[in-house]
Amino acid sequence: MDFKKILANDHVKPYLLKARYGIEKESQRVDLSGNLAKTDHPKSISIRDKHPYIQRDFSETQIELITPVTESLKELFDYLAAIHDVAYRSMSDNEMLWPLSMPPQLPEKEEDIVIAKLKSSESVQYRQSLAHSYGRRKQMLCGTHFNFEFGDELLQALFNVQLEIKDYQQFKEEIYLKVTRNYLHYQWLVTYFYGASPISEKNFFEEDSLNEAVRSIRCSKYGYTNSDDVQVSYSSIQNYLSDLSLMIKRGLLVEEKELYAPIRLRGGHHVSDLADHGVHYIELRNIDLNPFETYGISYKQVEFLHLFLIYLLWKDEGNDCDEWVKMGELYNNAVALEHPLEHTQFEIEAKKIIDEMEHVVEILDLSISDTLFVHLREMLMDPSKTLAGRLYKESQKSSQSEVATYIAKENYKKSWSKPYQLTGFTDMELSTQILMFDAIQQGIELEVLDRQAQFLKLQLKDHVEYVKNGNMTSKDNYVSTLIMENKTVTKKILQRHGFRVPMGEEFLTIEQALRSYDLFSTKPFVVKPKTTNYGLGISIFKEGANYEDYQKAITLAFKEDSSILIEEFIKGTEYRFFVLDGQVYAVLLRVPANVKGDGIQTIEDLVIQKNRDPLRGRDHRTPLENIQLGELEKLILKGQGYRIDSILDKDEIVYLRENSNISTGGDSIDVTDQIPDDYKKIAVDAVSALEVKICGIDLIIENIAVPAANKNAYGIIEANFNPSMYMHIYPYKGKSRRLTKHIIHYLFPELSQSQESFVKQGAPLVKREFTTVSC
Amino acid sequence: MDFKKILANDHVKPYLLKARYGIEKESQRVDLSGNLAKTDHPKSISIRDKHPYIQRDFSETQIELITPVTESLKELFDYLAAIHDVAYRSMSDNEMLWPLSMPPQLPEKEEDIVIAKLKSSESVQYRQSLAHSYGRRKQMLCGTHFNFEFGDELLQALFNVQLEIKDYQQFKEEIYLKVTRNYLHYQWLVTYFYGASPISEKNFFEEDSLNEAVRSIRCSKYGYTNSDDVQVSYSSIQNYLSDLSLMIKRGLLVEEKELYAPIRLRGGHHVSDLADHGVHYIELRNIDLNPFETYGISYKQVEFLHLFLIYLLWKDEGNDCDEWVKMGELYNNAVALEHPLEHTQFEIEAKKIIDEMEHVVEILDLSISDTLFVHLREMLMDPSKTLAGRLYKESQKSSQSEVATYIAKENYKKSWSKPYQLTGFTDMELSTQILMFDAIQQGIELEVLDRQAQFLKLQLKDHVEYVKNGNMTSKDNYVSTLIMENKTVTKKILQRHGFRVPMGEEFLTIEQALRSYDLFSTKPFVVKPKTTNYGLGISIFKEGANYEDYQKAITLAFKEDSSILIEEFIKGTEYRFFVLDGQVYAVLLRVPANVKGDGIQTIEDLVIQKNRDPLRGRDHRTPLENIQLGELEKLILKGQGYRIDSILDKDEIVYLRENSNISTGGDSIDVTDQIPDDYKKIAVDAVSALEVKICGIDLIIENIAVPAANKNAYGIIEANFNPSMYMHIYPYKGKSRRLTKHIIHYLFPELSQSQESFVKQGAPLVKREFTTVSC
Repeated sequence: MDFKKILANDHVKPYLLKARYGIEKESQRVDLSGNLAKTDHPKSISIRDKHPYIQRDFSETQIELITPVTESLKELFDYLAAIHDVAYRSMSDNEMLWPLSMPPQLPEKEEDIVIAKLKSSESVQYRQSLAHSYGRRKQMLCGTHFNFEFGDELLQALFNVQLEIKDYQQFKEEIYLKVTRNYLHYQWLVTYFYGASPISEKNFFEEDSLNEAVRSIRCSKYGYTNSDDVQVSYSSIQNYLSDLSLMIKRGLLVEEKELYAPIRLRGGHHVSDLADHGVHYIELRNIDLNPFETYGISYKQVEFLHLFLIYLLWKDEGNDCDEWVKMGELYNNAVALEHPLEHTQFEIEAKKIIDEMEHVVEILDLSISDTLFVHLREMLMDPSKTLAGRLYKESQKSSQSEVATYIAKENYKKSWSKPYQLTGFTDMELSTQILMFDAIQQGIELEVLDRQAQFLKLQLKDHVEYVKNGNMTSKDNYVSTLIMENKTVTKKILQRHGFRVPMGEEFLTIEQALRSYDLFSTKPFVVKPKTTNYGLGISIFKEGANYEDYQKAITLAFKEDSSILIEEFIKGTEYRFFVLDGQVYAVLLRVPANVKGDGIQTIEDLVIQKNRDPLRGRDHRTPLENIQLGELEKLILKGQGYRIDSILDKDEIVYLRENSNISTGGDSIDVTDQIPDDYKKIAVDAVSALEVKICGIDLIIENIAVPAANKNAYGIIEANFNPSMYMHIYPYKGKSRRLTKHIIHYLFPELSQSQESFVKQGAPLVKREFTTVSC
Repeated sequence: MDFKKILANDHVKPYLLKARYGIEKESQRVDLSGNLAKTDHPKSISIRDKHPYIQRDFSETQIELITPVTESLKELFDYLAAIHDVAYRSMSDNEMLWPLSMPPQLPEKEEDIVIAKLKSSESVQYRQSLAHSYGRRKQMLCGTHFNFEFGDELLQALFNVQLEIKDYQQFKEEIYLKVTRNYLHYQWLVTYFYGASPISEKNFFEEDSLNEAVRSIRCSKYGYTNSDDVQVSYSSIQNYLSDLSLMIKRGLLVEEKELYAPIRLRGGHHVSDLADHGVHYIELRNIDLNPFETYGISYKQVEFLHLFLIYLLWKDEGNDCDEWVKMGELYNNAVALEHPLEHTQFEIEAKKIIDEMEHVVEILDLSISDTLFVHLREMLMDPSKTLAGRLYKESQKSSQSEVATYIAKENYKKSWSKPYQLTGFTDMELSTQILMFDAIQQGIELEVLDRQAQFLKLQLKDHVEYVKNGNMTSKDNYVSTLIMENKTVTKKILQRHGFRVPMGEEFLTIEQALRSYDLFSTKPFVVKPKTTNYGLGISIFKEGANYEDYQKAITLAFKEDSSILIEEFIKGTEYRFFVLDGQVYAVLLRVPANVKGDGIQTIEDLVIQKNRDPLRGRDHRTPLENIQLGELEKLILKGQGYRIDSILDKDEIVYLRENSNISTGGDSIDVTDQIPDDYKKIAVDAVSALEVKICGIDLIIENIAVPAANKNAYGIIEANFNPSMYMHIYPYKGKSRRLTKHIIHYLFPELSQSQESFVKQGAPLVKREFTTVSC
């Protein structure tokens, strides 16, 4: 088939870069000095052997991170980053991930390498057989597997513009087989650019096999390879599969998945899926960990691989395909064993390939990063710019192990620096980020359906739940949320259920409201627009009001909405109760922006100091907001006789705002354990009267020491159907309440079943399209 | 107690007019000629004996309409009007309500007056005993009962400013007893103004007892009264109750509710509630039907009664309270039997009362209708302006019976003129009005929680359902409605469930969208903002587009939203499927505004003619909108070579709009029975994939004769969580689909149980605060 021609067809071109990606990345857990960890796999993520994102590979210390399938590289890296965050923060805080494919110093005795303590005895047996065949040391190598599938629209378009093959599945096979054979032939190019295992650490080799540094031990014959007798043909799927069967029959392989080729044809979960359903995608396995990237692989690397695969489809191959593949293996081993600072013996060939790739980009109108080719040529001209070259050069200054430990520590710090954020998704709302973190950690399959809209799909086996904004779920009924949205209706319902709410009336016209002056004039009352939520248009009269002020307040409120409420003002402290499924999980007190004096610093200094808290920031990207020193704050200070250069007495507290919103620099203080049960019961019962499952309900309480049953002990201000969760999880003071985890367990009660029952059920955890095969 | 003083207290004044009201109004059903109906009580409202709004009184022809308790007169009259609408449209369309208290001509034989065919044998027995004691003829009198409760805030305020009585319940009793005694003393004033039963029709009296017309037969000794032996004291609740018991013991009354006083003290459902819980409200029973008001009583009448009751509380009473009451009875009978055009013998006393009432209004700062006193004085000066006077004068021209028949017919026409509206609530959305109609008809207790927000509370026994906008209910889960609100997420989910949706992509920037030109350029496609719903910013390219047009469309769409969708355009006809709980209840085709020629009239004439349809109107107050002839319509006509004065050939159809929205004059055509089941199944399954219960889902189908399973037979455009219902109920063409009734039965499945089981359950239907005691 003339792929050069059909790839350039106008009906194909728009889809050329459509693809689906996935990454699996292994790393060794080490302590903060870079020694192999002696601890078990973290408990919080060892819920099941088949965690969709974080598993153990061969050994107990070998963490494998697995992204879901994505349709863009951006998404791929977002997930990779996020899963790294979860892995890091699930590990003990004195452990980190080793950034190299070569493991850190291994135990002297091979038996001290601990095989992964999996629950499935089959999985453990398989690992024992690997240990027996290859030795435990070799199994400690780590790398990145890159799963790649051509977009279906692309394959369809290609299929449609050719006439030779009538069957779509067969056509797909041809495509993937050609790419696979060419990849095997040209794999040395990847090894040259991205090989990154030049030197082994102590006890990797039983006896030192290599005297000199190389480009990639892992990709060479000293790495992770089958015995020379293991040979399969890539001439057709049939031949490939029958060769594989033969290898097993002859005892050369225990299972089909033991075939350690640099690229693997994938049909599904089992090799047999290939025969049944054809090729689904391919898995590139010869990618060493990139030590210079936090997540072990760079965006450009993946971009290169994608482009390389298109190029390999375009590029003619040798006539004898088995020979073509065999040559590739030889070339690759040669390149892998070259010195990392040495030019490759295939430099001319490499240059030609790069030129041709650039040509393909041009004729196919592919849009790629501007500097990709510049960068590739640089590496070609200067071997010290390849990954192996860079690592080797760095290591010369101290040792590879020290370099790796330093890098690991930087990554470690980065992952812990903003524990409330989920890297990759920091543009999303904080509560959603935290919920996503917990979902990943709990092994819930996560998909962002609409990023801007904070719309998530969570899935555990066949159980799907959709979540918007962290806590808008299927558990709440529609009309109840509409009730909460409507203050008048909420109050009416709560009042009829016997709860105290501020008495008041709704008005549709200024005239109507003015006529009711006598009803309110002498009591504490509030005038507010009916539906605004941001404090706009609200006037509070704590001691009643004269007619003029009453009139002004009404006019102000009507500017914000077409109907207003005039309500009794209830004195006391406002508490936010977070109620979930009939239980109070957190109670929060919000205090207006303030500083506490030390007798030395000015108010401005104190604000600057308080804003240094890593929990504080701007624009809701942190659990707390910076305290501002704008006109309003200065005015409020002035009202109290202060300026920003005033020095406060020790322990003197000055407020810079009148409202207690967290968004204007207020403090959040967890008081869950201090609030008596009778008030919690009021909150729970009120939420139940509204028939709501997830609710943030605001109670004003004058004195929590007074029983809730006392007359006017409390008043309910409002009920919120999308209550902020992050402020409870990262309060300024007090205990953190991980509400997102409660939400997940509420949505997936099956999570709370014992680990045992999960194992017993046995079915594959989630339907994933790229399936992981460990080891 | 000095009520004059405490009523004028500043702490009391703001609450003086706070009160709760209820009306019960009886009418005889008659045929269109004014003859007593021979038919049974309407089936659609005879579901239960204890319908909360529409019951039978003594006879099968005697309909009793009952408003819920309201806190404003406006609401009271809104409900009264609405319940009238439901009663009228539940009756056969050749029946109407007799507008007089005096029944129309009765059957010659008393036995031919049919006692209400109630299911409860007790109720029937009670009516038989009444027939025995008073004769069936007298039981055919009709009137209005006005239930009145002083506002709790008012009573509390009064209680708080006095020191004499320590117990609140006792204080309330004092208030109601004083008002009751004074009412009994001064009842003649009400009879003078509002008595309206001057003449009896044939067979009311067995022998003619009255030779002359009077003010009120019903309120006189010839009306609905107990025997003279029945006397009770109103000196205290205790005395009242013990007298009542005595009457029953002596066989003068069968039950306590047989006491036919012009005012009744009410504690609750049973007389014994008075002893247990004190007085809850009072029931004025001496109000004749006002023939000149569609709903039998005027706003001013009720305003007068309210003011009169306040006045009676203020007004000193006689020392001997039993004597005081007895005098009132005598006065009243005298006034009732005066000739309707004669001045009353108590004119001077009446004038004094009116002056005093006006004085009370002044000193207590009460706000009342400007013309109330003018009107009262007019009636006092000129007896022909009282109700009895007016009716008598009118009747002189023909006969009372003809006048009544004419009035009844006018009311009948009014009730049927806009069958889609619910009078009293025409400011609400049509679908909500229709749902309210059905709720009232089905005997569901209805409360409007927020009129502007279309927020209803429906209740059947203890089962409460909240409904917003007619179909936003507790049955749908929150996140599913959020899914439907989000086109991207809806499409993703439907697509993954195997439904065909327009393929497309979401873009966040113009640049991004421009880069994807090649993906769409050659195919039919649509560019649209992600969230706008009104057709703004949408461009359709049925044959692909050049780059400039593509760019323009994108810019246009981004003006409406921060993200846009570019989607495949699916050709065919768009149908709206209304799906409820897994079943398609209606399918609608919407056709752009159009007229069909007759070879004679111009387009303008045809539009005017088509707009005469009573279903058409403006501003969504009717099921269809008027076709406009604005600039846009003229432009579209021009594009087809027409002007508004063009004459169309016979049967030629011309479209005046390109969009098929009902809101721009489009036609709605019910095609439920024409759509094959396989397409209905697609609609049901898609709605179920979204986990939605109530949904309007839009399918584009190219040809309904082609099986839905065929490739690309259909495409799903969107799913709506608040689909319009009225367009299915009142379509331009085709069968009406009463979706609101299905919604009610879905919310209250217990409604579908047999009538029997309802009767067996026996418990009071709803908790009402004013309880009806029939007969």
